[in-house]
Amino acid sequence: MTDEFLQNPTFVKNPTFQMKIKTTILLLLIFSASLLKAQDSLMLRHIYDEELVKGQCYDNLHFLCKNIGSRLSGSANAQKAVVWGKKLMETYGFDRVFLQDVMVPHWVRGAKEEGVILDRNKRIPVAIVALGMSVATPKQGITADVIEVHSLKELDTLGESVIKGKIVFFNRPFDPRFIETLRAYGTAGDQRNAGPAAAAKYGAVGVIVRSLTESVNDYPHTGATRYATDGIKIPAAAISTKAANQLSALLKQKKQHIRFYFKQNCQTLPDVLSYNVVGELKGSEAPNKYITVGGHLDSWDLAEGANDDGTGVMQSVEALRILKALGYRPINTIRAVFFMNEENGDKGGIKYAELAAQNKEQHLAAIESDLGGFTPRGFGFDGASPNLVKNINLHWKKLLEPYGSDRLIAGGGGSDISPLREETPGIVLIGYLPDSQRYFDIHHSAIDVFENVNKREMELGAASMAALIYLIDQHGFNF
Amino acid sequence: MTDEFLQNPTFVKNPTFQMKIKTTILLLLIFSASLLKAQDSLMLRHIYDEELVKGQCYDNLHFLCKNIGSRLSGSANAQKAVVWGKKLMETYGFDRVFLQDVMVPHWVRGAKEEGVILDRNKRIPVAIVALGMSVATPKQGITADVIEVHSLKELDTLGESVIKGKIVFFNRPFDPRFIETLRAYGTAGDQRNAGPAAAAKYGAVGVIVRSLTESVNDYPHTGATRYATDGIKIPAAAISTKAANQLSALLKQKKQHIRFYFKQNCQTLPDVLSYNVVGELKGSEAPNKYITVGGHLDSWDLAEGANDDGTGVMQSVEALRILKALGYRPINTIRAVFFMNEENGDKGGIKYAELAAQNKEQHLAAIESDLGGFTPRGFGFDGASPNLVKNINLHWKKLLEPYGSDRLIAGGGGSDISPLREETPGIVLIGYLPDSQRYFDIHHSAIDVFENVNKREMELGAASMAALIYLIDQHGFNF
Repeated sequence: MTDEFLQNPTFVKNPTFQMKIKTTILLLLIFSASLLKAQDSLMLRHIYDEELVKGQCYDNLHFLCKNIGSRLSGSANAQKAVVWGKKLMETYGFDRVFLQDVMVPHWVRGAKEEGVILDRNKRIPVAIVALGMSVATPKQGITADVIEVHSLKELDTLGESVIKGKIVFFNRPFDPRFIETLRAYGTAGDQRNAGPAAAAKYGAVGVIVRSLTESVNDYPHTGATRYATDGIKIPAAAISTKAANQLSALLKQKKQHIRFYFKQNCQTLPDVLSYNVVGELKGSEAPNKYITVGGHLDSWDLAEGANDDGTGVMQSVEALRILKALGYRPINTIRAVFFMNEENGDKGGIKYAELAAQNKEQHLAAIESDLGGFTPRGFGFDGASPNLVKNINLHWKKLLEPYGSDRLIAGGGGSDISPLREETPGIVLIGYLPDSQRYFDIHHSAIDVFENVNKREMELGAASMAALIYLIDQHGFNF
Repeated sequence: MTDEFLQNPTFVKNPTFQMKIKTTILLLLIFSASLLKAQDSLMLRHIYDEELVKGQCYDNLHFLCKNIGSRLSGSANAQKAVVWGKKLMETYGFDRVFLQDVMVPHWVRGAKEEGVILDRNKRIPVAIVALGMSVATPKQGITADVIEVHSLKELDTLGESVIKGKIVFFNRPFDPRFIETLRAYGTAGDQRNAGPAAAAKYGAVGVIVRSLTESVNDYPHTGATRYATDGIKIPAAAISTKAANQLSALLKQKKQHIRFYFKQNCQTLPDVLSYNVVGELKGSEAPNKYITVGGHLDSWDLAEGANDDGTGVMQSVEALRILKALGYRPINTIRAVFFMNEENGDKGGIKYAELAAQNKEQHLAAIESDLGGFTPRGFGFDGASPNLVKNINLHWKKLLEPYGSDRLIAGGGGSDISPLREETPGIVLIGYLPDSQRYFDIHHSAIDVFENVNKREMELGAASMAALIYLIDQHGFNF
């Protein structure tokens, strides 16, 4: 529209002409909107092409798994991973790479555990592993009768008279009917998290927990347990699902003859100084607004922490690498964060949020990848706006559909980013949702190794994360 | 509405009353529709619960893979699988179990192949396997110069003067940019299918084809090649992707010094009588209308044919088992079919369609599972009605969404069921679409073994197939 038109009142007041102007504006808006959509669509294609043709996250994961290995908080390997992770980000030429000091617990497993079912004079060795943060048994181990229970409620019902002096055997299996295995984990998890503390209250001398997995095999799955701060600490171990079935069957057949022996040698040493590793692509327009993408660098000690959470950290740095490789200049500052200590303390996530508040950073969104490097399904969103998920679907679902990352649902978040909810109000917390079927087969066990990660699945995840970062950076959540 | 109302003209002619009637009918329709939806939704939940809690397909697959093993058409193992498959269906108490005679080709690999890159006097052994249906080399093998090409078109451009007397090395890799790997397979596949016949035309003495996979390792992938009926047959083998990269690099460095030697011992014996295995749940209302669900029982000879297509046949029989276990009485006849000879002749699929036409069977739909036992994404539909896919989405997408099998797209079908298109007009051909990322890593290679199938992923596929059969049986496609 030229000034001449605006200065000519007859034109402007003519209703037909006004309608034409309105139509033109509307058409221009529609045209610009579809141009924007086309531009977004093209950018997403570039992101996936870059990753599928020149992806580096799988090779980086290989290095992390095979040249460093398991990375429990406070371990020498965790420190190696910090140094290597920082160097990797520097090599990629991010605008700023730095460490955040985090004091972390330092729990060590010690010599391999022993677990034995005692069937009168018969000794049946079974696969167990100490739960993370558990105390050791006495040097000679613990031998006691076994009481099998299926819930904390059942434990309460039985009470001290039945429990006292016994080893409590939590044996509630995963419910296979949940389509998403994370929900099965969620509903079975209290046995490991809270079971030992609860059993101690009733005078149990030890706890054996069925491994938190649906698959039946001889790999026990560790994971943290939490003692009551003022309670008695009794040793707690996970038993393989195969051995749990065996023990349960024997208890059914001949309860009076069955006892259990176990010995573990773990201990908690003094806290250690460790680090979150942070890399940034600086925002060109709003450098104090942040979009964080991350996973946790620490892992359990039984394997390589490949899917938990090697894939998550390597995908996070890859998301930034992709955007940089495409010459994308972000509006807001985009950060890849390798959080420390998700597995047994969450200290890294807590520290990151504290520093964000302290430094008055405005956080738009944080994306966490901590459900394995499996094929993408979508993202879960957790934010204050009531129509958030509806609007995200309306605007972005079609764009993500060709890549199979278009299940955009309510929920999400993750342990490392959840402290940001309190510390940086207004943030949208986002959980990357890969397919969940295989995760708990390997989670926290000796088979969480590089070989159980598929290259393309991991790459598609990294590209999905980069795609979502791009959309958030471009459009925010003010739909 | 009672007759009294209809016989009272004042009621019927009163427009307000008519409107009330219309509203009531509409409300009743909406109510019935939502009741039906609720019933469907409940039935789907029962189907998934049955499978996830009491599924048997994974154990059946274990038997097929470990107690029978590879099942190339015409082999003793293929016959064992027929006998066992029939017995399995009988054990499940299906209403009718029968075999269909099928004459199949009988190609045998013979002694293990040898492939060697000759770099002047240096011999570099590499992993090759004869392509299915290929002829043998002479006893002393073939040694020749190598010409690397990337397409049939390039072959035509080079022509006889360059090709004659040489070994043609087809080395066009998978294009990693396709999100669905089936499309990468589709676009690379002509090298294996048609390459040897095309190279023979120009006087090549042998053909080496880069294995049809994106992953780079030392497992060559076999698969059928097709000679021209009146053409010269030259020996053709697949080379592992790792060896293909090595050969290509050496050719780039020092073409004049590089030759290739290979020896293979395969032969085609006389055709053999084999069988499709068919099991039926008889339709209670329309027994001559059929819904078929199937996969192929034959497999390549290098491994156990676990994902190709042990999962497909075991999921098919499982779909019927689930429906029967739930006491479901189908309206139409539902058939599980183990097709014979998909890999090197499609004779089973052709025979099944011929018999369908001959027996004047009306086929509503056929579902094929032949893309591996991976986590479900949805189904592809191929039918005559222009709004088919739109309507399927409108009516069934929401029902399948909670199970992640809700990508309902155009396309689909599969080699075994496609002959039904001609023979039984009006049929809807349906391809089960699991996630495609891992299939071509293992397809037709020595690692297509039981261990590369995940229990839950396979079960969810079987349940998805049962769910779709139920919906088709209840509602047909007349939306």
